[in-house]
Amino acid sequence: AEITRLETGFYENVNSFFLCSMALIIFFMQCGFAYLEAGAVRSKNTTNILIKNLLDSCICIIGYWAIGWALAYGDSGEGVNLFVGHSQFFLSGFSDYPRFFFQYVFSATAATIVSGAVAERCEFITYVTYCTVISTFIYPILTHWGWAESGWMARGITSGIIDTKYDDFAGSGVVHLCGGSISFLAAWFMGPRIGKFPENEDDESDEILGHSVPFTALGGFILMFGFLAFNGGSVASISHAGDGHTVALAMVNTILSGAFAALIYLGVHYYNHGKWTLLLTINACLSGMVAACAGCNKMEPWACIWVGVGAGLIYLALSKMMIRLKIDDPLDAFAVHAGGGFWGLMSSSIISHGGVVYALADAVSGAENSGDHLSQAFAQLGWQMICALAIVVWSVSFMFPIFWLLKKTGKLRVSEEVEINGLDVFKHGEMAYPLRAYGHGWHDFERA
Amino acid sequence: AEITRLETGFYENVNSFFLCSMALIIFFMQCGFAYLEAGAVRSKNTTNILIKNLLDSCICIIGYWAIGWALAYGDSGEGVNLFVGHSQFFLSGFSDYPRFFFQYVFSATAATIVSGAVAERCEFITYVTYCTVISTFIYPILTHWGWAESGWMARGITSGIIDTKYDDFAGSGVVHLCGGSISFLAAWFMGPRIGKFPENEDDESDEILGHSVPFTALGGFILMFGFLAFNGGSVASISHAGDGHTVALAMVNTILSGAFAALIYLGVHYYNHGKWTLLLTINACLSGMVAACAGCNKMEPWACIWVGVGAGLIYLALSKMMIRLKIDDPLDAFAVHAGGGFWGLMSSSIISHGGVVYALADAVSGAENSGDHLSQAFAQLGWQMICALAIVVWSVSFMFPIFWLLKKTGKLRVSEEVEINGLDVFKHGEMAYPLRAYGHGWHDFERA
Amino acid sequence: AEITRLETGFYENVNSFFLCSMALIIFFMQCGFAYLEAGAVRSKNTTNILIKNLLDSCICIIGYWAIGWALAYGDSGEGVNLFVGHSQFFLSGFSDYPRFFFQYVFSATAATIVSGAVAERCEFITYVTYCTVISTFIYPILTHWGWAESGWMARGITSGIIDTKYDDFAGSGVVHLCGGSISFLAAWFMGPRIGKFPENEDDESDEILGHSVPFTALGGFILMFGFLAFNGGSVASISHAGDGHTVALAMVNTILSGAFAALIYLGVHYYNHGKWTLLLTINACLSGMVAACAGCNKMEPWACIWVGVGAGLIYLALSKMMIRLKIDDPLDAFAVHAGGGFWGLMSSSIISHGGVVYALADAVSGAENSGDHLSQAFAQLGWQMICALAIVVWSVSFMFPIFWLLKKTGKLRVSEEVEINGLDVFKHGEMAYPLRAYGHGWHDFERA
Repeated sequence: AEITRLETGFYENVNSFFLCSMALIIFFMQCGFAYLEAGAVRSKNTTNILIKNLLDSCICIIGYWAIGWALAYGDSGEGVNLFVGHSQFFLSGFSDYPRFFFQYVFSATAATIVSGAVAERCEFITYVTYCTVISTFIYPILTHWGWAESGWMARGITSGIIDTKYDDFAGSGVVHLCGGSISFLAAWFMGPRIGKFPENEDDESDEILGHSVPFTALGGFILMFGFLAFNGGSVASISHAGDGHTVALAMVNTILSGAFAALIYLGVHYYNHGKWTLLLTINACLSGMVAACAGCNKMEPWACIWVGVGAGLIYLALSKMMIRLKIDDPLDAFAVHAGGGFWGLMSSSIISHGGVVYALADAVSGAENSGDHLSQAFAQLGWQMICALAIVVWSVSFMFPIFWLLKKTGKLRVSEEVEINGLDVFKHGEMAYPLRAYGHGWHDFERA
Repeated sequence: AEITRLETGFYENVNSFFLCSMALIIFFMQCGFAYLEAGAVRSKNTTNILIKNLLDSCICIIGYWAIGWALAYGDSGEGVNLFVGHSQFFLSGFSDYPRFFFQYVFSATAATIVSGAVAERCEFITYVTYCTVISTFIYPILTHWGWAESGWMARGITSGIIDTKYDDFAGSGVVHLCGGSISFLAAWFMGPRIGKFPENEDDESDEILGHSVPFTALGGFILMFGFLAFNGGSVASISHAGDGHTVALAMVNTILSGAFAALIYLGVHYYNHGKWTLLLTINACLSGMVAACAGCNKMEPWACIWVGVGAGLIYLALSKMMIRLKIDDPLDAFAVHAGGGFWGLMSSSIISHGGVVYALADAVSGAENSGDHLSQAFAQLGWQMICALAIVVWSVSFMFPIFWLLKKTGKLRVSEEVEINGLDVFKHGEMAYPLRAYGHGWHDFERA
Repeated sequence: AEITRLETGFYENVNSFFLCSMALIIFFMQCGFAYLEAGAVRSKNTTNILIKNLLDSCICIIGYWAIGWALAYGDSGEGVNLFVGHSQFFLSGFSDYPRFFFQYVFSATAATIVSGAVAERCEFITYVTYCTVISTFIYPILTHWGWAESGWMARGITSGIIDTKYDDFAGSGVVHLCGGSISFLAAWFMGPRIGKFPENEDDESDEILGHSVPFTALGGFILMFGFLAFNGGSVASISHAGDGHTVALAMVNTILSGAFAALIYLGVHYYNHGKWTLLLTINACLSGMVAACAGCNKMEPWACIWVGVGAGLIYLALSKMMIRLKIDDPLDAFAVHAGGGFWGLMSSSIISHGGVVYALADAVSGAENSGDHLSQAFAQLGWQMICALAIVVWSVSFMFPIFWLLKKTGKLRVSEEVEINGLDVFKHGEMAYPLRAYGHGWHDFERA
């Protein structure tokens, strides 16, 4: 009895500590997104993109506290609900704050992805709207589907030898594929920034460049740091035998996957263009980490070679595709998050233990029951595809009427004048780098 | 016996781990203050403000190690001392390093607040002086009053049905109200920066702007991250039943309070000026987090609506007041820390469990003993006010003669020539952005 | 039995949690190095230095996973090997991921030190080569010597009353002296940047300045944050009695040592030049923290006065020496890491418990066996010197033929044209601050 009391008390405290400290670092990813994006826009829109990322955290905590949590995990216990939670609004009757805080930082991450795709032209009201809707409705309901015990994706299908369940450890699907899909929709509704796709295709002189490589890289470094906590922390417990081991495995797999994605992309880019690109390598690295989310807790490290290489190449293909489609996604939010996220869902059913590759290897080596294993592995892969499709359809179809309405009412995009002259001064009254604040009076010290 | 040994050993280690990891993140707040301030000054004073923030950590560890800890918590056991500790100088005979390290990072935070208020005109020697005095004497003695068992504020008054104790979980009072009050005094002694309050009031052309919105925002993001550890970590233990729960509750309340402060301020500002300000919203958010310090461990999340909204509006009022008074506080250190801190002390006695609001609700609903509850709640609020007053009086009256002496000896403020031309080159020999370090030779790549 | 099970399970999880969370923060030091260096180069080479620091993490995880770990800790159990591990390549048959992850981040730190010394002129292929070699071969073998149970330095010499063992808690030697020595070699092979040492010695107009003090300081702040985890985390366990205490002691000693190094350097510099330098004070602070690595777990805090002051002065001397030798180390990587690292190894045998100072004090006070204590203390100091020498010789002699070969084949350094015009555009196609991305169209808002 003493021992049980000790064990319970101990693990409750240590689990809380673990959740809170990981959540802290994940919270810091907001800063990472902010600088990844701030460096990638022109100086005239810097304040605008920074305030968006600041408000993400603020809007999201209110929305997730009031409604989001209830929709996601607020089961009332009176029978399960496959589609949506429906109790504990405003956390009434609820007190597991460590778990709430941990889920909140994930929700804020899902909402913040989109701001990169609509950068430099999005109206403030549109931003506030989609941010509220994603963190309060779209994302929470998706997590109910995939991560709540009673969700339909999490329950999956059990029939004969087949037992499939949605398999998404840290959110390749519900976080990144969701955010990435909405990014695509938003960028498509917005239309490209003025000058992004010049009529004369040979005219590269109008290429839009971000104003600060160091800020973008700073964001990238912070996001790499944060992703390790994002994926490692998703164990969400440090009390069961082997939990600590899994945390570390997830972190190792995440950095391995990111490294392979970065290096393959860098190699291909160098082969094609003769330049060692930093900015795109950062994106590729992030897409590798996004892809690692789904299965990093159960893959062997060697499998991350394929997760990473796949993510790097898919990122490459999707970012090229967006340019072909003349859809302007300034931060490649779609290519990184939807591409990496989708590949994460697939790869976790292919090259994790029990996945298609293992089943094939069994079959080839003629192991017992290898036929059953194959059936199960392919069924699981199929279920993952269905879930991925559901995530995309849900996210896009929820946002479509909202963006459509905003467009009809002229609230989607700033005026041409404001876009050309920059959002910072007009919308916020704050230039990022006021000229008058520069310079000093010791001119004899400056020897040019 | 085995179990007791096990329990003690466990908790000693895990508590140390908890204190050290939270202290690490709080230590990183120095970086947050540095960039909040660096972005808010003109480029000619950037190196100056950065070195101040670097030296804060360095001066403070030495002062707090040698003397500060002793004054704060160095009770010798031979009878209590209400006003000041008096043993364990240089940590002699002391070895609870986790607790020391944790207290040190708080002390460094208290000292660093002031550098924003005196930015762009403070002499180096003045900075070193006040930094040493605050972290070695003023702040440690305040924490003895409020946080050491034998301190007079912590002991409070027990008389009949009344039992009041100073109630300041994470330092709204002893950290922020202290630093904020000294900021006011320092800014008043310094006088405004040249050009801050032009004679012709309509002439806004001389408004002094900071040189980099992204650096200020970076500081803000880092401080938000740090504040969660500051408030969550203040549980200072992870071994009692419910500690982990309290850590998370404190974090949730902190971000909620910051969010409401930010959004109310942003709304009011937009209503008045038609602009969505980033810089002031960051300050408002921080003042909401400062206000959350005092009671975030015991409030219901809904109560943070009032903590946050109150803090945002008080920040607004105090920052306007400073301009009316023509006191130049470049970072609004007074409005953020003293305003937020004072409101934190009040609100924790008003809308926490057992506070005035709960007692009133009891009275209205006619609960038993509701009269006694009301007496107790108002007495507690009164005691908080007395303590708040004591903090302000102590901080201001300790620093007054020091600033006065520095002013008399002409050491308070740099010369007019140095202020106009900038402190970086003259004082430090290091321009923040040397012109000659910019530019490259591939001009055909730059198409303007 | 229950208790043992409980204890084992607890500690396995909590240790993993401790290792992973400290490793996360150490990983973030890559970001610190990136900005310390990015701010210290000219704007034309900013992208170049950032990509180096990004790739450090990526190359190193692959090399350390595939080979490095095996060489460092991969003992097969069949008899010890004094010089190198030889099993667990690709982590086969290994699953202690928390320990692996923790060791990996150290390895990445060792590799990243060098990039500062070769900044602004190093060929990309040279960078990739040395980074791979250090993290895959040089550093892992050194850690086998010093930190694996079977390593020759760790086993040391036991003979009569003498029992010496390599004493390097957090890597003053195997991390910093190693990285610092290679930095010296690399900077010497590279030759100085064009214009660094003008022929006319009085002509200071060509002094090469970094382009952004704020970025360098940002890196410094992040590194200070990281160093506390680097040194505190090196306890590498939180389960033995007193571990938590040691973690905190290490952190306190680290910040104390850094503070004394910073302040002594600042004082000397002010005395000599009349300026309060920020950039060099940051370097001095870091060298103090480097020096603290070796003995911060067992020193009394007062001893850190000497560790810090010594490190600050050695940094001063070595950085002057490099200028005398006309070796161009843009980040003072040699002076900071080799100087601090060497002094760390020495000081931990001099002023830690059992060190030379304690033995002398014993001798002076005529304590029993004080002669034996002296013999032991000096023998230990001698062994530390031998180990330090071995680290330098190994690091330098491994890299020498590689740099020599790269130099012979003309791959060491970029062409004069590329160096003068900058590496960013030519090598990476990415200017750090593209001119066309600046400016806005609301000119009436800008009043100069």
